[in-house]
Order: sequence, then C-alpha cells, then structure tokens
Amino acid sequence: MEYRTVSICIIGTELTRGVITDKHGSMLASSLSRLGYDVEAITIVPDDGTIAPVLEESVKGCDVLIVTGGLGPTSDDLTRSSIAKLAGVPLVQDKSVYDWLYKKVGERIHGANLVQTMFPEGFLPIDNPNGTAPGFRGIIPSGDKEVVCIAMPGPPREMDPMFQNLVVPYLAALRGHDDTGRDEYSVFLIGESKLEELCEQVGIDGVAWGTRFQDYRISLYLTGEEGRRKAFASRLKELTGPCLVVDGDHEAVSLLEDRLSEGKRTVTTAESCTGGLVGKLLTDKAGSSAWFWGGALTYANEAKRKMLGVSEGVLSSVGPVSEECALAMAEGIRTESESDLSISTTGFAGPTGEDVGKVWFGFAGKGMEPQAVCLHFTSYGRDSVRRKAAVASFLLASAFLDGVRLLDMVCKWQYI
Amino acid sequence: MEYRTVSICIIGTELTRGVITDKHGSMLASSLSRLGYDVEAITIVPDDGTIAPVLEESVKGCDVLIVTGGLGPTSDDLTRSSIAKLAGVPLVQDKSVYDWLYKKVGERIHGANLVQTMFPEGFLPIDNPNGTAPGFRGIIPSGDKEVVCIAMPGPPREMDPMFQNLVVPYLAALRGHDDTGRDEYSVFLIGESKLEELCEQVGIDGVAWGTRFQDYRISLYLTGEEGRRKAFASRLKELTGPCLVVDGDHEAVSLLEDRLSEGKRTVTTAESCTGGLVGKLLTDKAGSSAWFWGGALTYANEAKRKMLGVSEGVLSSVGPVSEECALAMAEGIRTESESDLSISTTGFAGPTGEDVGKVWFGFAGKGMEPQAVCLHFTSYGRDSVRRKAAVASFLLASAFLDGVRLLDMVCKWQYI
Repeated sequence: MEYRTVSICIIGTELTRGVITDKHGSMLASSLSRLGYDVEAITIVPDDGTIAPVLEESVKGCDVLIVTGGLGPTSDDLTRSSIAKLAGVPLVQDKSVYDWLYKKVGERIHGANLVQTMFPEGFLPIDNPNGTAPGFRGIIPSGDKEVVCIAMPGPPREMDPMFQNLVVPYLAALRGHDDTGRDEYSVFLIGESKLEELCEQVGIDGVAWGTRFQDYRISLYLTGEEGRRKAFASRLKELTGPCLVVDGDHEAVSLLEDRLSEGKRTVTTAESCTGGLVGKLLTDKAGSSAWFWGGALTYANEAKRKMLGVSEGVLSSVGPVSEECALAMAEGIRTESESDLSISTTGFAGPTGEDVGKVWFGFAGKGMEPQAVCLHFTSYGRDSVRRKAAVASFLLASAFLDGVRLLDMVCKWQYI
Repeated sequence: MEYRTVSICIIGTELTRGVITDKHGSMLASSLSRLGYDVEAITIVPDDGTIAPVLEESVKGCDVLIVTGGLGPTSDDLTRSSIAKLAGVPLVQDKSVYDWLYKKVGERIHGANLVQTMFPEGFLPIDNPNGTAPGFRGIIPSGDKEVVCIAMPGPPREMDPMFQNLVVPYLAALRGHDDTGRDEYSVFLIGESKLEELCEQVGIDGVAWGTRFQDYRISLYLTGEEGRRKAFASRLKELTGPCLVVDGDHEAVSLLEDRLSEGKRTVTTAESCTGGLVGKLLTDKAGSSAWFWGGALTYANEAKRKMLGVSEGVLSSVGPVSEECALAMAEGIRTESESDLSISTTGFAGPTGEDVGKVWFGFAGKGMEPQAVCLHFTSYGRDSVRRKAAVASFLLASAFLDGVRLLDMVCKWQYI
C-alpha cells in the first residue's frame, strides 16, 4: 500500500492548559511535508484518558499515526496501553530494553520505570539515548489497511533527535523517494482574495496552489508536474504585471538590498507618509550600515522645506502629495548625502480624508534621470497603506536601479 | 446546562505543513483554563475539507467548540458551511455586516468577499475591526446538548483582539463567573519568563495571573478579589521599578502620545540604531501629524554630522554610542525643528559585536535641561534590541516630560 497521509497526536496536559506552547506539531509537520507526506490533522490532548478515543478516531483516517508523549514513568501511561489495545495485542517486555534501562537506573527499574520496558507485542523499540523511555513502532490493522504507528516520548530533547535520526530515515524509505515537486513564489502588493481569484483564473490542470499570508508579502506554493508549475507561474506573472510575483521566498526589501550590496551602492530615504517604516525595514537587515546612510522623516511641510529643501512654491501650489514634491524630496536627500540612490514617499495614509491610499514615490540616483510615480492603494486602514507603500518603494527602487521606466511598469499593475 | 469542556479546532494548511507554528492553541488554552474551562483537545487541520468530519467529531465531546481560521475570502470557505451544516441551518446574509464590509471594500464586495457577509442562520456576527472577516457564534444541537460554537478568523492580528475583547467576556459569563473581577496591566521591557518569575515571587493567595505576549509589551491579567488584585499589582510594581507596569492596556507609544496631545506639544526624533522604528511607531497613530514634526535617520556618522550637527570631535573622541552624541543628536533636531520635545537613540543593535544591546537615549525639550541615559538590553537579536530601544524611548520621553530625573528612574530597572 501507499503511505501518504499522516495524523499526529500530541499528548500533554501542560499543552491543553496553555502553560507551554507545542513545538512538536510544526516540526513534525514540516519534516513530513518535505518527505512527501500530507498531514491530515495535528491533535493535542491532555494526559487524562482522552487519548484512547482520539487514537481510535485518528487511525481510521490515516496511513501513518505519530504519537508523542505519555511514555514517561510518572504519566498514566495510557499511550502505550491504548496503542496495544488498538493493535489488538498485549504488552510484552523487551529483554534488551530491560538490560539497557537496568544499566541506566539500576534497581529503580522495579519502580515506575518498569513499564518503560514493555511494548505492544510485535512492535520494535526505538532507542532513546537522552532519556529512560524508548519509542516504538509497529502496525495497527484498521479495516483493510495496515496503519504504521510510531510513538515517541514527549520531552523535546528526547523526541527531536529520536525523530530526526531514527524515524525520518524509516519514513523516507516508507514513502519511497521524496520528489514532492513544489515551487515557492513571493507575491507583493496584491491582496489575498485577489491573488486567489487570479490563481483560479490561471487554473492549469494538475497544478495545486496554496498561499501563506505574511507581513509584507504572500508566499505562493505550486505543486504538480514541473512543466505545468512553470506554465502556471508564467501566466500568473503576465496577469499581475512585472515584478509583483518573484521566484523564491524573498522580502521586497531584500530584492533592493541585493542590488545595493552587489553594486556597493548607498541609499537614503526621505519619508513623509511612511514616517520611518522604509528606514526601519532597511535597517532591520544586519549589515545595513554598509549601504544605508540615513534619511529624513519629514511629516510637517516645514520639515520638507528645512530638511530637504522642498520649495515653498511647490508646497503651496501643488502641495506635498505631488510629483514635484516627491522628486524634490528624493533629490534633496540625495544631494545632502551624495548617496547613490534615494527614495521618497509622500501620500495620504489615512485613515480618513479624500485621497486615502494615494502615494507618490520619488527616486534619484547618481548620474540617473530622477523619476516619480503615483500609486493608489485600496485602503484597509493606515497600516495597510503604509505597508504597501514601503513594499512598493523597494520594488520601484530595484527597478529604478535596473534602468526601468517606472511609469511603463506601474501602468501594468492592475491588481494592486 | 454547565459549560465546562472545550474543543479547539485550528484551521490552516500552513500549520499542518509546518510552514508556521501555531500560537492560537496555547493562547486560547491558557485563557480558557484561567476562566475555568477544561480544554479536551486542540486539533489542527488543513484548509482542504478535513474540517467537516473533525468538527462533527469534536462537537460530540465538548460543551464549547472554538474554531479559528478558514473565514478568509477563499474559494473553499469550509468552516462557515461546515458549521452551518452541523447546526442544521442555512447560511444567510447579515445586512449590517454587508453594509460594514461595503464601506470597507466597496464594489469588490461582489467578488470573493461576499461570502464574509454570510453566517449560519441564528448565529451572531462578532465584529472584526482588523480585517474583512467577522467571527460568529451560535448553538449547535448535539444529542441532548446545546454546544456553543464560536468561529474566529485565523490571522493573529484579527483573532487575538477579537477573542480577548469580545469572546472572553462572553465565555466568562457562560462559565458562570460571579466574580469576573479582572484587571489588565501592560508590562514593558521585561522578558516573559522573568515576568512569570516575578509574579510567582509576588504570589498572593486567591489571585490568578496570566500573560499575553504582544509585539511591544506583555499584557498581564489578574483575577480574584479586588483588594488582593490591587495588592498583587502594587507589589509587582515595587519589584519592577517605576513605569514598567502600567494600569490598563496601553502601548508605550500611546503613553507619550497622550502627553503630547494633552499639552499640544510637538516631537521630533533623531534615530541611529532604531533606524526609523521610533518614527514609524509614532506615525502609526492616526492624527500624528498634529504632534510629529519629523526626524532624522542618521545611520552613518556623516549623517549625524550633516543632518544634526554632531561635532567631529564627539564622533572621533567618544564615538557615536555615547552620552555626548545622544545629547548632541537630540539637541540638533530640536534646534532645527523648534519642537517641544526631541528623542534620540544611538546604540549597538547587533547582531554581533562587543556591546550589543547598549543604547544611549537623549532627550531635549523647550526650556528643559536635556538628559541622556544608557540602557543595556540583553540581546535576543537585532530585532529585540531595536524593539526594546523604541519602547524605552517612549517610556523615558514620557517621564522626561513629567520632569523625572531619568538616571534615578533607570537605576531601579533591574529586570529589563
């Protein structure tokens, strides 16, 4: 039979009381996904007897059942006996485990530890170099299936190495070789629901997609045959317009950082509506002092005049949210700093007012013609406008350094 | 009937793939335990149809069913329909949610968002100020029981406040708390484990405490009889030193904002190691243009000289991370802007190097003696140092405006 679906049961009353946060679930799930398994459920239950019906239910719907916890000498030891019962076998002592544990704990083995030498008949112990409870694995018959069951102790210092060193190789072999065929893309400025609509629209047979919403981007995963995955991605990129769907897992700021580091170029910022967010994201990067000179936060018009030399004429005629002001801000900070690149943002972050979401971006560069473009983001509040403006500033700055005419680019950004 | 047992279902393919680690489970479990509920199981399932049988199974064994995730504007939307099906009712549109969402997203409501206006008949929507998917709650009949079902969106920035503000009071009443007496405090700059040690140390009989780790603070909840709660808080405040434990739910930046707004005062910033984070947090606030003039991000020494007038002598003798430089930065920006208050930060954010976590803060004010203090944060990485520095800058600036001698204050901050 093919082994593909996995159910994970994690036992620990401290977990269901919220005293500690489970970390096994995501570690196991991520390793299993890489091996080509599908995790159908992760269930966390207390040590109090709930485990038996949960195991019984879980075993019905999966090919592999992984259980952690409930093997310690002080627990009620329901894991061990529930698994034996499900498998329809008695618990029997393993002589070599008895000898090993006797060496470890001596006469105390005849106390609470004794149960740790007992395993469901036909199951194989899994060595535990870091504790007194070995794991075990074997088969639970369920209907016409033979479910593989693996039990491991709960403490991370015992479970993690046992899983990585002894269980992963077994599961890899069980699955056959793991070619899960999966690509990841980073999607910028497009909303989650719009992205999903666009993926539906692309809809290539045999390609499955999934999204993960992150702080400043959406990760898009494609699975399926390689040629089809590539065709899906290329159609999606055509639909979204340039630079909004990027191969791999990248932050927008990293795309700019790479260009700055490669070219040994420096950058400065002149921020109005983003109020420091652009600088903050640039300086989140360790080593940013190599390429970030500094910047001006010019919220008040007077700050734009005094710190960046924006003329009174510009501010009083076209106002601070304008092409002229964005250009003057970018040129102002670049002149003062003599940096290779400068970025300016000026717009309406809201939450209220007419043109909320309208942001002008200016770019100036040593020996380059300055450029400014305006984007109009749909506002889901101040934070959303500012985040999008920061991301856009990095994408636009990267394109600016590449010599792209920004106006041509942004007019293809229909879905931001 | 008595409501005591809870089952939590968490939906997210990124969780069962191990791409991200679930945090809802432990947060919900810990809050529910404090309210006197027993969490019987936390089940994490992918977005792919597994949810229906899991909900069906869960509802059998609990009095309260809590579901998070699967309410986004996705094609699947199985949470909503599975709950309706379990409750035996159709999905119906809620007019007031429709109107609210129309205001938020406009005509796009007729796309993927439309489903977010639909709820199982008889269920009540739960407001979501931070997203487009309201939660909902209602009754699922199961055998002779009426199971209370509460569904909330998955993203933590939406789910956390919805749960704490709207669901906890409901669940407290449902559990029959006669004394729901509860106080909330905001704790700044103290680590989670240290705070828990301090709470253990305070340990007043009859007072239960719980913490919720947030981005820039920890929320501390105390329950129990009022006099004892107050005694607990007052002992804790003595232990931590001034200004680090504040009554109510407040961001550090809001404490400063209140003082600025009340006094109609303006503020400017001169940031080195925080690189824009202080400005970003100030301008996160709607209406900040009333009191935020602007600031300088001076990462390079040359930027400190050119933009703030820090003397070459200071930079070459004591260097940029020094009392002298912090004072010169604060005075430089205040003089240029004529603002009422200015804040400077200069330090080592790391991640590597000698004095990582050492940050000097400078404060200047109209008609006030400037002050500078140095803090040395334990470094858990660049991000942690910068966050703490930003929080400290707001706490210190607030105290500075209150006329406090900062050096006296920070020498009592033993646990930061």
